[in-house]
Amino acid sequence: MKNLMEYNFPQDLKSMSDKDLSLLSTSIRDFLIDKVSKTGGHLASNLGVVELTIALHKVFDSPVDKIIWDVGHQAYVHKILTGRADKFDNLRQFNGLSGFPKACESEHDVFDTGHSTTSISAAAGMAAARDIKGEKYEVVAVIGDGSMTGGMAFEALNNIGDRKQKVIVILNDNGMSISPNIGGLSAHLGNLRTSRGYINLKNFIKNRVGTIPGGRGLADVLAGFKNDIKYTVLEEGGVLFEELGFTYFGPVDGHNITDLINAFNRAKSLNEPVIIHVLTKKGKGYKNAENNPGKFHGIGPFNAETGETLKKSGISYSEVMGNYLVKKASSDNKIVAITAAMGDATGLGNFEKEFPKRFFDVGIAEQHAVTFAAGLAKSGLKPVVAIYSSFMQRAYDQLIHDVCMQNLPVVFCLDRAGVVGADGETHHGVFDLSFLMSMPNMTVLTPADGNQLEAMLDYAIKLNSPVAIRYPRGEAVYDKNIMSTGTEAIINERILPPGKIDIWACGKMASCGAETVEILKKSGFEAGLVKVGITKPLDISAYESSADLIVTLEDNTVAGGFGQTLAAALADKNTQVMTIGWPDQFIRQGSFEQLADKYGLTAEKIAERICEHIEGKA
Amino acid sequence: MKNLMEYNFPQDLKSMSDKDLSLLSTSIRDFLIDKVSKTGGHLASNLGVVELTIALHKVFDSPVDKIIWDVGHQAYVHKILTGRADKFDNLRQFNGLSGFPKACESEHDVFDTGHSTTSISAAAGMAAARDIKGEKYEVVAVIGDGSMTGGMAFEALNNIGDRKQKVIVILNDNGMSISPNIGGLSAHLGNLRTSRGYINLKNFIKNRVGTIPGGRGLADVLAGFKNDIKYTVLEEGGVLFEELGFTYFGPVDGHNITDLINAFNRAKSLNEPVIIHVLTKKGKGYKNAENNPGKFHGIGPFNAETGETLKKSGISYSEVMGNYLVKKASSDNKIVAITAAMGDATGLGNFEKEFPKRFFDVGIAEQHAVTFAAGLAKSGLKPVVAIYSSFMQRAYDQLIHDVCMQNLPVVFCLDRAGVVGADGETHHGVFDLSFLMSMPNMTVLTPADGNQLEAMLDYAIKLNSPVAIRYPRGEAVYDKNIMSTGTEAIINERILPPGKIDIWACGKMASCGAETVEILKKSGFEAGLVKVGITKPLDISAYESSADLIVTLEDNTVAGGFGQTLAAALADKNTQVMTIGWPDQFIRQGSFEQLADKYGLTAEKIAERICEHIEGKA
Repeated sequence: MKNLMEYNFPQDLKSMSDKDLSLLSTSIRDFLIDKVSKTGGHLASNLGVVELTIALHKVFDSPVDKIIWDVGHQAYVHKILTGRADKFDNLRQFNGLSGFPKACESEHDVFDTGHSTTSISAAAGMAAARDIKGEKYEVVAVIGDGSMTGGMAFEALNNIGDRKQKVIVILNDNGMSISPNIGGLSAHLGNLRTSRGYINLKNFIKNRVGTIPGGRGLADVLAGFKNDIKYTVLEEGGVLFEELGFTYFGPVDGHNITDLINAFNRAKSLNEPVIIHVLTKKGKGYKNAENNPGKFHGIGPFNAETGETLKKSGISYSEVMGNYLVKKASSDNKIVAITAAMGDATGLGNFEKEFPKRFFDVGIAEQHAVTFAAGLAKSGLKPVVAIYSSFMQRAYDQLIHDVCMQNLPVVFCLDRAGVVGADGETHHGVFDLSFLMSMPNMTVLTPADGNQLEAMLDYAIKLNSPVAIRYPRGEAVYDKNIMSTGTEAIINERILPPGKIDIWACGKMASCGAETVEILKKSGFEAGLVKVGITKPLDISAYESSADLIVTLEDNTVAGGFGQTLAAALADKNTQVMTIGWPDQFIRQGSFEQLADKYGLTAEKIAERICEHIEGKA
Repeated sequence: MKNLMEYNFPQDLKSMSDKDLSLLSTSIRDFLIDKVSKTGGHLASNLGVVELTIALHKVFDSPVDKIIWDVGHQAYVHKILTGRADKFDNLRQFNGLSGFPKACESEHDVFDTGHSTTSISAAAGMAAARDIKGEKYEVVAVIGDGSMTGGMAFEALNNIGDRKQKVIVILNDNGMSISPNIGGLSAHLGNLRTSRGYINLKNFIKNRVGTIPGGRGLADVLAGFKNDIKYTVLEEGGVLFEELGFTYFGPVDGHNITDLINAFNRAKSLNEPVIIHVLTKKGKGYKNAENNPGKFHGIGPFNAETGETLKKSGISYSEVMGNYLVKKASSDNKIVAITAAMGDATGLGNFEKEFPKRFFDVGIAEQHAVTFAAGLAKSGLKPVVAIYSSFMQRAYDQLIHDVCMQNLPVVFCLDRAGVVGADGETHHGVFDLSFLMSMPNMTVLTPADGNQLEAMLDYAIKLNSPVAIRYPRGEAVYDKNIMSTGTEAIINERILPPGKIDIWACGKMASCGAETVEILKKSGFEAGLVKVGITKPLDISAYESSADLIVTLEDNTVAGGFGQTLAAALADKNTQVMTIGWPDQFIRQGSFEQLADKYGLTAEKIAERICEHIEGKA
């Protein structure tokens, strides 16, 4: 077997035998385990789609045929098979290969993804464009069973089924998304997976009726009904999809390349919407991942042999939140927790164990999660909704329409707010301050450290109106330079007295603000520091008119963020406001430090910008 | 029959016979036609649910039992039956009865709605709270077939089906939502509506097999399978819902009170999720509305006898957009139009007629609409997406993640931006400037009149990146005071030279700005005027340092809007910025003029605020 980089993929696949392809799948698995153990990344889902991806590139002619990867974290094999194997040493690194499809990397990445459940809609659009332009090619969406619980998938299936547009949807069913997945749909798929029952019934009718005098005719009549009635006990599964206008094939063994190739060719030959139900095993071929697919979903560098992660980090903000919530919920039985397929990841694992009846994982369905919480709150409970900042974007309307408009006491824990690192632009939570601060009745809190997160959670649960707490990914900070002296009041607290310069730093930027003050001091500038814990309603009680320049720091886009709001509020004061945050553009992957350096958000760069500003004025 | 106001509803319903209830339904229809013909409102949908609502309040014990109205524009009968008949003279008026459920009006309005597809999620939350608290009552969601195409409904059904929570969903199927509705689901419901075929098959098998020697046993065996196999030819329809974990009843004649009462009682007796499929006729009992349910969906005052609307208004912004788009599309076959069940309402009726293959109404599915458009754009077409501003909130994430992140040339026509009038807080489009302006790569345009809307549409179609044009509900303005002098450039154009005061007015507020300048002049203040046509990217080329005070006017919340952005951009200038727009709270129903007066947004009030501000400073 050649080294993976010696092939000319995807062309070379076309001439390979099924046996060669099977050998190739072993090489790819070894390659993935080796590379991801060094860089970290999404391993288990990629190990699960090795044969699926090989078969796709064998049957379809990418990039003429369009393959769209839902979510996209399972596109590593696709990247290997489209000429990017040599870039895996820099997978998910600053300036390196993205962990998601990116049109800027390859013409084979036909639609960028990152959030779940968009692929069928995108495929529908591409197929519609193809047909309008009279072109001929296949459009294929590959979507997991977890993503399929998102409502947008249903909207797209419904629309395609209506127009009978030719689109091939491949349902990659591993029986779990990030967490084991949930819902009536999951049960439906479970039924399909074990659909022998229906086959037996079919045989039973054929045999039994066949033995009855005159019964053969009945069997024929029943068979004749097949075309009139789509859902019938005489055919295996897929009824839910058939009802929406799709032709259903499956289930297909997702680790049998020959079966996959046959199914894909069959779908290609039809001129109608088709869904192919493929069964795969997450982590397939790597025992450590097969046994613990959750751990190997998204993982840091690990020992390939033992599967042990190399770096044990301190307590994360997620854990601080989850542990504190368990404590609160022990003495307050009105507290309930809701998440959208992010239970363990948001620190709610213990809550689920302690209070299983008060814990709701609704699957990848942020819209439902938020309105469901509104219903709980309306009925007198205290719902805490933990969802990543970036995924909360899905529930923007529900936040306004179902929670804020009725002024309901729902606590939103926006985990992974701000720049998140290796997952890049689709996962950075840099819009939440902007979108939350324009929502009436919403309180927005930005803890600067682990203690303040606990204090804010305590405050939020007591509050009788909507409140969002946004905190960053990763290890909780406990920085003595920004510790509150008294009780952890939910105000914008002055940490250092104002000089001519006054730094107002939101949440995690408070530490950076303290550092900036030190650097400025060395340059001869006196600066004060306000730790901004609450961005809405706006609290300017710490404002001191002696400052000529206020500098705002936020781990959020400057567009519509805290700084602009403060600047507008101080427009009639004789104080200038300089707003520092992420620029109004999409921020690629990289560590916070790398990106902060690139965009001028380190203490050094901030101090430099402040000095330049003052000198520019002078 | 007593006058409707003489009853003590809902209690009085409990003792009424089915015959009396039937007579009551006639009184209610007469009442609705009479009242809505004077105030305007949602007539056809309410005429369709008269018996349904009566039966609900007969069987369920509101407000102990919770009845949640999806969208809520069909809750007029519910309002009549919960003691609000006497308030219909002020329906949808300033300070009058709302056209939607409002907890502040009645304890019978248990969850406020306005946008579609939220009811099942809210019901799920309430039912979960009930069960956690060990309480006993019914939770009922009433949802139309149109709303059912929204993905959120699927998310909610999926979650309820998984938990097997007792919730009663009433699917009010009138075969059309605002427009005749669309999608595979619709076809599925169509099949259920005409499901005699299945009954006949059932009878056929029973009879046919019964006559075969030994066949009786087979019939019994087949019947026995019923419990094992949920979707079976031996039972009528509902398979899609059954697959998601619901027990399906139906179809039920939605105008037969006895049948409805029986179905509701049956649902009540079960301890599981139930969906009752009710067939109703939109506009039922009023010929004008039955014949033209679209016109009578939401209608202004009309002649009750002839059905003719009383006021013929001028050309609307929607028509300006639609007509111009038809013109452009005639010479550019790459232009395609997408909407989400708002085709006629957004002015796309003619486009659909002229270019049926380039027109896509995806149903109530804004998320899909936007990503579908992204797919079309990615494949080289020029999609124009027309959706109301307030409903576009549903696609916030798709705008960022699928369109802006890939910098795709999709044109968004945000109709009914700003305060819309009688529909109130759920329908005002007062957040769009805030949410659009924080999206990287997005261009945001605010036309001040009909000519500028055309010019901007022209510009937008040529632009090779995402662009949103937001314009108000209603008649297009052509105000000579704010007409552009040269070509309709997409800039912030100075209309009047600056005085010490300079007014920067976005879109429709430009006329008001011109008026404000006149009023100020009479008070001895010289003011300039800039017509703000583009809010993002920010264009400050019209800025003149001679102005001491810039006043921004926008038909948007001040929070995160244009004014704050300009204030932040001018933070280092010696110019104060006063931001005027809607306050950071939810704005109730009323005409634009009434609300502008209440919140200080008329020219008089604005001039007053400016004078006060200047005097306060002096």
